[in-house]
Amino acid sequence: MNEFAVIQRFFTTQKISRSDVFCGIGDDAAIITPPVNQQIIMTTDTLVSNVHFPADTSPYDIGFKSLAVNLSDLAAMGATPAWITMALTLPEIHETWLTEFSRGFFTLATEHQAQLIGGDLTRGPLTITIQAHGLIPRGQAIQRNTAKPGDLIYVTNTIGDAALALAVLQKKFKLTDDDQQTVFTKLHRPTPQIKIGEQLRGVASAAIDISDGLAADLGHILEKSAVGAEINVDLIPLSAALRHLEKDKAIQFALSGGDDYELCFTVPVDKKNHVPKNCTCIGTITNTNELDLRFSNGIKYDLHQTGYQHF
Amino acid sequence: MNEFAVIQRFFTTQKISRSDVFCGIGDDAAIITPPVNQQIIMTTDTLVSNVHFPADTSPYDIGFKSLAVNLSDLAAMGATPAWITMALTLPEIHETWLTEFSRGFFTLATEHQAQLIGGDLTRGPLTITIQAHGLIPRGQAIQRNTAKPGDLIYVTNTIGDAALALAVLQKKFKLTDDDQQTVFTKLHRPTPQIKIGEQLRGVASAAIDISDGLAADLGHILEKSAVGAEINVDLIPLSAALRHLEKDKAIQFALSGGDDYELCFTVPVDKKNHVPKNCTCIGTITNTNELDLRFSNGIKYDLHQTGYQHF
Repeated sequence: MNEFAVIQRFFTTQKISRSDVFCGIGDDAAIITPPVNQQIIMTTDTLVSNVHFPADTSPYDIGFKSLAVNLSDLAAMGATPAWITMALTLPEIHETWLTEFSRGFFTLATEHQAQLIGGDLTRGPLTITIQAHGLIPRGQAIQRNTAKPGDLIYVTNTIGDAALALAVLQKKFKLTDDDQQTVFTKLHRPTPQIKIGEQLRGVASAAIDISDGLAADLGHILEKSAVGAEINVDLIPLSAALRHLEKDKAIQFALSGGDDYELCFTVPVDKKNHVPKNCTCIGTITNTNELDLRFSNGIKYDLHQTGYQHF
Repeated sequence: MNEFAVIQRFFTTQKISRSDVFCGIGDDAAIITPPVNQQIIMTTDTLVSNVHFPADTSPYDIGFKSLAVNLSDLAAMGATPAWITMALTLPEIHETWLTEFSRGFFTLATEHQAQLIGGDLTRGPLTITIQAHGLIPRGQAIQRNTAKPGDLIYVTNTIGDAALALAVLQKKFKLTDDDQQTVFTKLHRPTPQIKIGEQLRGVASAAIDISDGLAADLGHILEKSAVGAEINVDLIPLSAALRHLEKDKAIQFALSGGDDYELCFTVPVDKKNHVPKNCTCIGTITNTNELDLRFSNGIKYDLHQTGYQHF
């Protein structure tokens, strides 16, 4: 099966056809008619086998996650997904693998009305680069550099589960079946927080998605906004799986572990009643330029390790 | 040097700042304010080390070519380059390599006022995925599926040089120094035909860039347009380097070799006076569904091999 046949069979099957896509897959490039009064949000992320996921990860999950991590960046800007391209590098054509990979990818894409409009298929070590494009009404995108002292700091859902899942895969921890199921789902099929991101338009003063660990990613907001933060680590929302661990260890996963793809965002106090459900306030932006982590009893939390770095 | 320092040092140095880029490198995603009455052309192409270029290719050339092949797709649509993202996967951080790679990349990008607005840097086997976005007045994009019987078929500049260069690298041919210089430049630093692409708006009925070989790429126009073609292979424009070879071999390189990144396009007869300079008519679109290749004397040319396929 040559590359054209692979594209035809596995990647032209999506059941949506957006009215703003004038020409999708099948030409030198796609043609988009952008809606008026909207800005376009663009992001790209690569997943490399054995770096971003274990080589034996199910192809469904690889397809799902490679899109999810990109949609998560759109969510952090408050954008609504629109168009996707995929650059897929494969060591070989394996039909079962491609069937499952594309099923995982399209399940998530179609859930968000995001249309695959083009891509490239090459031979080489397994690498998936997705580019996601989203839309947002002009001027409403939520950036990193606009947090202000006094703003409240929130995170979505629970934090640290993906890092715990990774530790389980590395046989550093053993969990009950239920807890293992929970954290593996968070690692392999993260939910991009698109809906919450949209609800944060006009509410959040800054936002980021948590891909490198809460401390590191909140650190990006602090650095870009030239502010500091006080976090009460006891307030960080933890899943039952993490609450079953020793407290210090659980907080370390939450602060330093990556791959959560939850959102961390800041909200001016007078807008706190507009914060969506499933978001937890964990602290306050300060004018100190420092990230001050404390337990409820006032004792400092010692951050052993910050986020994942590639080099 | 961590990934953030690498991005800061090597990839935030571009000397242009487009007015339609509201936010470039440094947030979860870029924010673009698209101009009104324009459509957006999007394309992505990956270059994998040892597949798309020999591992010992100069990093300047790798940076240049990884963008050039993408801009070439924009040229084939008639688009003007605008915004670029880059997903770069590197086995290690090598400062000299990155200096030269980014220099090659930005030389071409800035020549076309194309701004790098974001990307991703990951660890893994050397792989470069670029996504290029171009602009075109609404309705003027040149597609593949719109060639009509009677249209004339053109190619830009000369064809087959990159394939000859590859054969020289594989020690199948030996050239004079001058010829070798010519063909190596075509292989390693292809010129995307942006200017000719723009001049073809309203003139060409269909276009494609020649990346897989003239016969294969013209074949895509024929298939998508449901037409055929008669080509006089003696009319295919060849460089001096190719004209120094045996004629049959030279034509084979031109028809079957890839990596030229010239354009092949079709023009209705009544518009032939508007065809830009440096374009050569090599045949005519027919209503046969066949690609008929002949010498000037009417004898059929036997195409030994069509374009490069990855799998």
